[in-house]
Amino acid sequence: VRVDAGHDCAVVHGTQALTADTMVAGIHFDDQTPAEDVGYKVVAVSVSDLGAARARPEWMLLALTCPGPGPWVDAFTRGVADACARFGVYLVGGDVTRGDRVVVTSTLGGALVAEPRTRSGARPGDELWVTGTPGLAGAGWMSARPSAEALRALRRPVPPLAFALALDAATAAMDLSDGLASDLPRLCAASGVGARLDAALLPLHPDVAAEPDPLRCALAGGDDYELLFTAPPGAAIEALAQAYGVQAHRIGAITRDGIALVGADWPAPAFAHFSERA
Amino acid sequence: VRVDAGHDCAVVHGTQALTADTMVAGIHFDDQTPAEDVGYKVVAVSVSDLGAARARPEWMLLALTCPGPGPWVDAFTRGVADACARFGVYLVGGDVTRGDRVVVTSTLGGALVAEPRTRSGARPGDELWVTGTPGLAGAGWMSARPSAEALRALRRPVPPLAFALALDAATAAMDLSDGLASDLPRLCAASGVGARLDAALLPLHPDVAAEPDPLRCALAGGDDYELLFTAPPGAAIEALAQAYGVQAHRIGAITRDGIALVGADWPAPAFAHFSERA
Repeated sequence: VRVDAGHDCAVVHGTQALTADTMVAGIHFDDQTPAEDVGYKVVAVSVSDLGAARARPEWMLLALTCPGPGPWVDAFTRGVADACARFGVYLVGGDVTRGDRVVVTSTLGGALVAEPRTRSGARPGDELWVTGTPGLAGAGWMSARPSAEALRALRRPVPPLAFALALDAATAAMDLSDGLASDLPRLCAASGVGARLDAALLPLHPDVAAEPDPLRCALAGGDDYELLFTAPPGAAIEALAQAYGVQAHRIGAITRDGIALVGADWPAPAFAHFSERA
Repeated sequence: VRVDAGHDCAVVHGTQALTADTMVAGIHFDDQTPAEDVGYKVVAVSVSDLGAARARPEWMLLALTCPGPGPWVDAFTRGVADACARFGVYLVGGDVTRGDRVVVTSTLGGALVAEPRTRSGARPGDELWVTGTPGLAGAGWMSARPSAEALRALRRPVPPLAFALALDAATAAMDLSDGLASDLPRLCAASGVGARLDAALLPLHPDVAAEPDPLRCALAGGDDYELLFTAPPGAAIEALAQAYGVQAHRIGAITRDGIALVGADWPAPAFAHFSERA
């Protein structure tokens, strides 16, 4: 075992990366979420973890707890199959149990395509990068009338798997699942470094810009399943991103300590603790 | 992938066996079940699957959905650690999510110590064997006043792992999780054979014998996590069992088709369909 709990994946037998993710009805999705999207997403979120660690997805065990068979389960299963086909995952088994509320856990295994990449390799002077537009999925659940695009980002996330596997230059990476404001401090803590986020560099999707507090949405909106990573200055990140059809934006830099936001105030009040630390 | 869904384990990468099991509060355990026993058992039931397939447990990912931190989770975690230490399992990661009812999924990986053993190798003329005393765990939940021993069988099952790994002679095996009346037909269907169960050979634990319908308890009581297996006549099963401190009993034989009970009537009415098939 080389990488242990606390990272996106565990690694066993040298090259086998492992990750598990649970989605709970009423917590991670609501009654409005199509069952097919729940099935798709529970696979995609684990693919996102494997990509961050630089492992190509191989197999999945799926544990489904639900009230019983029926159209919901049929649609859920179609979504699982969609995602498995899209990301090259082979469903090898699992368990189905009865329960009054849907709980679903995906356990995915994948083969490392290089040394495992963790959250702990960032160094002061590295650039800080993100794929996609942070907060778009968040706009999908925060907005009273989300756009089709924001809803799609929320329900059908497409982790940048091929890009993540090809990304040699990154010194540290993690998938963006809880939002920048939660995930960046984790990456910094794991690496023993700080970061400076530049508000002017944050790519704001029109749906995020249309939110009452766009910066809050971009920083606190979770569920993006994009890649947050660090790389030395001069790495050809944008060219690689373009080659893989992925948006990548430099949003700041790694520093010695503290997490600072430049060009804006932290959205109040939930973010007060960042100002104190910065 | 060599063994697929429908068996106790999947096998990937030639020698890596995989299994997942879910336990749901109110379904698989009740309010009276100590949290420590829930933690122990969710590991043990997956160890049981690996043993049946002849894989030595190695790692586990644990997915816990629960209302939040507290004494229940602390005790649960102690039970998980107990079982991991006992069966040689290394907890490498997982996911913790919030939900109003406890749902826990263990995903275990193990290394095959020989060719994977499935449910499908039984041949007419093979003897039918079982470890332990079927129905004892069932007596633990069916009885109004279960004995300490029956409760222990229910809450702290000890799958015969070392014996299962050493058992070269078995032609087919599965773990006994839903009771003989459910599991034996599965083994027979997978192997394309029938079976003759001899009521006089069924080992009746005193707690099972004390039930209102002992035969029903022995046949329908689930949760034993013992081994049901077939072996050619003359295999030195009893000597091997003795060497590993396991009780093994020959309870019948494999036939061409049908599932017959000899020396007793099928407990009515739930078992009527067996008589029809026999």
